[in-house]
Amino acid sequence: MSIIESIPNLSEGRRPEVVEAIASAIRAIAGVRLLDYSSDASHNRSVFTLAGEAQPLKAAILAIYEQALAHIDLRTHQGEHPRLGAVDVVPFVPIEGVTMAQCVDLAKEVAREVATRFNVPIYLYEEASNNPARKNLEDIRRGEFEGLAAKMASDGWTPDFGPSMPHASAGASVIGARMPLIAYNINLSTDRLDVARKIAAAIRHSSGGYRFVKAAGFELKDRGIVQVSMNLTNYEKTPIFRVFETVKREAERYGVTILESEIVGLVPAAALNVVAEYYLQIAGFKAEQVLENKLRAT
Amino acid sequence: MSIIESIPNLSEGRRPEVVEAIASAIRAIAGVRLLDYSSDASHNRSVFTLAGEAQPLKAAILAIYEQALAHIDLRTHQGEHPRLGAVDVVPFVPIEGVTMAQCVDLAKEVAREVATRFNVPIYLYEEASNNPARKNLEDIRRGEFEGLAAKMASDGWTPDFGPSMPHASAGASVIGARMPLIAYNINLSTDRLDVARKIAAAIRHSSGGYRFVKAAGFELKDRGIVQVSMNLTNYEKTPIFRVFETVKREAERYGVTILESEIVGLVPAAALNVVAEYYLQIAGFKAEQVLENKLRAT
Repeated sequence: MSIIESIPNLSEGRRPEVVEAIASAIRAIAGVRLLDYSSDASHNRSVFTLAGEAQPLKAAILAIYEQALAHIDLRTHQGEHPRLGAVDVVPFVPIEGVTMAQCVDLAKEVAREVATRFNVPIYLYEEASNNPARKNLEDIRRGEFEGLAAKMASDGWTPDFGPSMPHASAGASVIGARMPLIAYNINLSTDRLDVARKIAAAIRHSSGGYRFVKAAGFELKDRGIVQVSMNLTNYEKTPIFRVFETVKREAERYGVTILESEIVGLVPAAALNVVAEYYLQIAGFKAEQVLENKLRAT
Repeated sequence: MSIIESIPNLSEGRRPEVVEAIASAIRAIAGVRLLDYSSDASHNRSVFTLAGEAQPLKAAILAIYEQALAHIDLRTHQGEHPRLGAVDVVPFVPIEGVTMAQCVDLAKEVAREVATRFNVPIYLYEEASNNPARKNLEDIRRGEFEGLAAKMASDGWTPDFGPSMPHASAGASVIGARMPLIAYNINLSTDRLDVARKIAAAIRHSSGGYRFVKAAGFELKDRGIVQVSMNLTNYEKTPIFRVFETVKREAERYGVTILESEIVGLVPAAALNVVAEYYLQIAGFKAEQVLENKLRAT
């Protein structure tokens, strides 16, 4: 049995009835588990976390498109989060008993079916894309829904599947395969936003930092502190502890300390185990030494 | 469904055919999984790790006694490790869906049955014992098999079950219930045994250290280094990171650094997760945030 995770991001976070209709459509698919879903009103966006084998997941994504096309219209959509489409992003993530290559195949199969059935143009991204200019979500999404028609007509932006113009109400979608992503924030004992921004710039890939870190500095006004907010896109190659230690050292030069960190949502056990291995200097640790893993494997 | 772990320690580590006969007897019990077993020739001792529900585990322990009584004779047994009996120690450990109280009940039920069926005297220990002088395994085992007859005749050492004299060939057994135990070693970048011993004395309960730490200093002659070898008997109340940091600080005063640490055998996932929480200063972390836990629970 294999487990693939999919985390569709939809451009609706203010109408609970629409979010619930989408959740119900997912729950109606046998073989798919809806692990989590949450909405952000200021982003006007909802994130669903699904798990299952390839074919049930595909059915669930198609059911999501049906709901999204019926209820979401990007022409009147407003929110703080950048977005390109009603179903904005659909990543497939290998969890257990499945390879990245199989998740790439699934992404392409779903992309083709969505384009055919709903006439929504699809850009493949991350591991599912062979085009260096179109691997990164931010690059594909730049210009957002409002700039999409012009972008699609420009050189190099013909979609991978579907028509070469936006769907009138649903825009376009980005579908692909990637490693599990860890949403990780570090809060600093200061209200100096410039410090959070300088640290974010120091550690993120786009400005010279770690290969698998995306980061930005934010104010948490109600608490009077600032935050380095991150996405860790490959915890095997850029592990959490290395990012944490680098943020700590960078903060020191500004006379600032780390107040706390937080993991938002889910984290693979392996990403935490390597943290323990690192700080405790554990030599020769194996995943089978975790009692729960052993119990399940025997 | 509940999962209890049991880790019987037997006084035989040199005759593979006997060890295999015991392993086969365990495997023959439906509902019990033999997770691991290993033998130490210099200790002349083998440790088996079993998991299952209460009644199948009980059947497995009784099957182990049958084999041990047929093949092991303490009168001719020699080895570096202290021991009192052929089946030396049998702990029951709550893992999932079971309370410590239920493991205590199981320990007493097994102890009674072993005493009745095999005429082996049993001392209860740890959570299964109400007698402060007989909670600690080392206290019960002091004097070993050779001193057992005299000890059993002395004040306060009437066994909890069975006859008041040793079984001729099998001695006595210690049966009880306890938290998962973590065998944890820290290797130091020095060959100074006195340093390892002083650090062990500083951190272990018996000489003023942490409540749930047993420790001793050893030489690893072939590597030219020394080791602080520990048993952590309650990782919730005395977590690994606190022990590690204390060893690190104590080593500093002797100008010594930690070379590496090692976890021997199995470790509960929760014991590693709190290490990550501590070093990363993670606030508000919940076990459900571990992806694998979420997948199993949903």
